[in-house]
Amino acid sequence: MNREELFNLIKKKKSFLCVGLDSDIDKIPEHLKTLEDPVFEFNKAIIDATLPYTVAYKPNVAFYESRGSQGWISLEKTIEYLNKFQDEVFTIADAKRGDIGNTSKMYAKTFFEKLDFDAITVSPYMGSDSIEPFLGFDNKWVIVLALTSNKGSEDFQMMKQSYGDTLERFGIRSIFRKKLYEKVISVSQNWGTTDNLMYVVGATKSEYLTGVRVVAPDHFLLVPGVGAQGGSLEEVATYGMNDHCGILVNSSRGIIFASGESDFADVAAVKAKELQEKMEQSLANKGLI
Amino acid sequence: MNREELFNLIKKKKSFLCVGLDSDIDKIPEHLKTLEDPVFEFNKAIIDATLPYTVAYKPNVAFYESRGSQGWISLEKTIEYLNKFQDEVFTIADAKRGDIGNTSKMYAKTFFEKLDFDAITVSPYMGSDSIEPFLGFDNKWVIVLALTSNKGSEDFQMMKQSYGDTLERFGIRSIFRKKLYEKVISVSQNWGTTDNLMYVVGATKSEYLTGVRVVAPDHFLLVPGVGAQGGSLEEVATYGMNDHCGILVNSSRGIIFASGESDFADVAAVKAKELQEKMEQSLANKGLI
Repeated sequence: MNREELFNLIKKKKSFLCVGLDSDIDKIPEHLKTLEDPVFEFNKAIIDATLPYTVAYKPNVAFYESRGSQGWISLEKTIEYLNKFQDEVFTIADAKRGDIGNTSKMYAKTFFEKLDFDAITVSPYMGSDSIEPFLGFDNKWVIVLALTSNKGSEDFQMMKQSYGDTLERFGIRSIFRKKLYEKVISVSQNWGTTDNLMYVVGATKSEYLTGVRVVAPDHFLLVPGVGAQGGSLEEVATYGMNDHCGILVNSSRGIIFASGESDFADVAAVKAKELQEKMEQSLANKGLI
Repeated sequence: MNREELFNLIKKKKSFLCVGLDSDIDKIPEHLKTLEDPVFEFNKAIIDATLPYTVAYKPNVAFYESRGSQGWISLEKTIEYLNKFQDEVFTIADAKRGDIGNTSKMYAKTFFEKLDFDAITVSPYMGSDSIEPFLGFDNKWVIVLALTSNKGSEDFQMMKQSYGDTLERFGIRSIFRKKLYEKVISVSQNWGTTDNLMYVVGATKSEYLTGVRVVAPDHFLLVPGVGAQGGSLEEVATYGMNDHCGILVNSSRGIIFASGESDFADVAAVKAKELQEKMEQSLANKGLI
C-alpha cells in the first residue's frame, strides 16, 4: 500500500485508528482456550468486529514469539487472515528489529516476503545499513523508532548533541542542538522517502509533535500510547496531523482487552468505534473529509 | 551460568570463542537439504565438531525467523541440543530485541524461560524500562548493543553529547563529552551488575576498546566482527581483556561456512581450533592460564 492509498483508506473509513494485536494468551477470554489456536481465533474475532473502524492492525511480535513456533503459527495465520482484506487494511509488524546489513535483510525477507506485512517497526541504533535493507521493497514501509512512549525514552532519545558534533558532521555550526530522536528523524530521511518511511512518536509526548513536524512535515507518524499509556487523542491530532492526515494512532489493550468475557469482540468494536468517531471529527476539523 | 562459571569455562577450554550460528538455509551444504530439518542438522554437526574449542554459541535469530514457524522449530531444537551441554557452553540469542516494559517482559520469557538461553542481545534505544525486564532472571545475561561493527554505527552511536546535557542530567559539568555508545555503557551499568550485563563492542573498532575499558573495566564484552568483517583478534585481546578474560569473540561465517561441501563440519573444527590456539596464547600472555 502506498501513501496515497493509505490516505484514501483513511478518508474512506474516516479513521486513522491502528489496533494493536498484543494478544497475550494469558489475557484472552477463557472460552477461547479450548480451541486449537486460541490466539488466532481471538485475533480473527477482533479483526472482524473492528474492521469498519480500523485502518491498520499491528501485531506485537513479542506476544507471539513468547509461545515459540506455536506462536509463530498464530502470527502467520493472523497476517494471512488480514491479507484477505488487502485494500481495506494496512498491516504493521511491531517487531523493532535492526541488525547489521545481511541480518536486517533476513528480517526484511521474513516480514515483507514470507509474512507479507505492509510495514515493520525498526530500531535506529545501528544506523543506515541496519535500516536500508528494509527500504528496497515496493510499497513496503519502515517505521523507525524516534521518540517512544515509555519512561526509558528519556535515557538516550533525549540526549542533546554537542555543537562540535554538528559541526563535524555537517560542516556547519547549527544554532540548534538536536536531540538524538530529532537527529534520527533528520538523518534517516536521507535513506528513504515519505512513501516508505514513517516514525514512531509516542502520544505521551504529544507536546513534541510540533517539533517533529518541523523536521518531518510530510511523513506518516505511528503514534502509540493513547489510552492505557495516557496519551490524548485530541492533542495528537492537533499537533501531529498534516494534509495527508499523516498519523496512525494505535490503541492495543484499551480495545482488545476492554472485556475479558465472551462479549470481548463486541466491546472491542464499541471502543474502536468511539475512537473512530473522535478521529472523524479531527479529520473534519482539518478539512480532510 | 554466572560470571565465575563463565571464566572457569574459558580457562578450561583455553578459549573465549563464540561461534555464531547464522545458519542461512541458502548457504548450508546441499547434501543436508534432503533431511527433515536441514538447519538443525547443520547446527548439530557444527556444534559437535567445534565444541572442544568453543565457549559460547550464538544463534542469530533472524536466520531462523526468515523461515517462519519452521525456522522457530529449528531454533528450538538447536537450543535444546545446546542445553544438553549445559556446563560446557554459554548460549546467546542474538535477537537485538527491546520494547516497552510489558513487551520486553514477553521477549525475556521467550528467550530465558521458553528457550532457556543464557543471554540475549538487546538494543538500548528505548532505555531503562526496555532492558530491566531482562535483568530479573537468575544467572541470565543481557548483552546491550554499545558500539557495533557495522558502518552505520557512525550514524548515531558516535553522536557526541553536549555539555549542557551532561549538566542537566547529572548536576555537574563533565570535562568529557560522552558519545552515545559511552553514555549507553555508563548509564546502563546502573540497571544491572557485572554478573548479568555485558556489552557488544565491535572488533572493527578495537581502538575504542581502551576507552570502553575505562568506563566498564569489569564487564564482559561480546566482540563481533573478527574475520569476515575484518577485525583483528590480537588487537581485541590486547585492548579488551581483563582479569576475568572479559571478552567473548564471535566468528560466524568464517567458521560455519568455511566449507560449503560435505566436509563443512571438519573444516569448521579446523577454523575454530585455529582461533582457539590464538586465544590460548592471549590468555597465557595475560597470565590467566
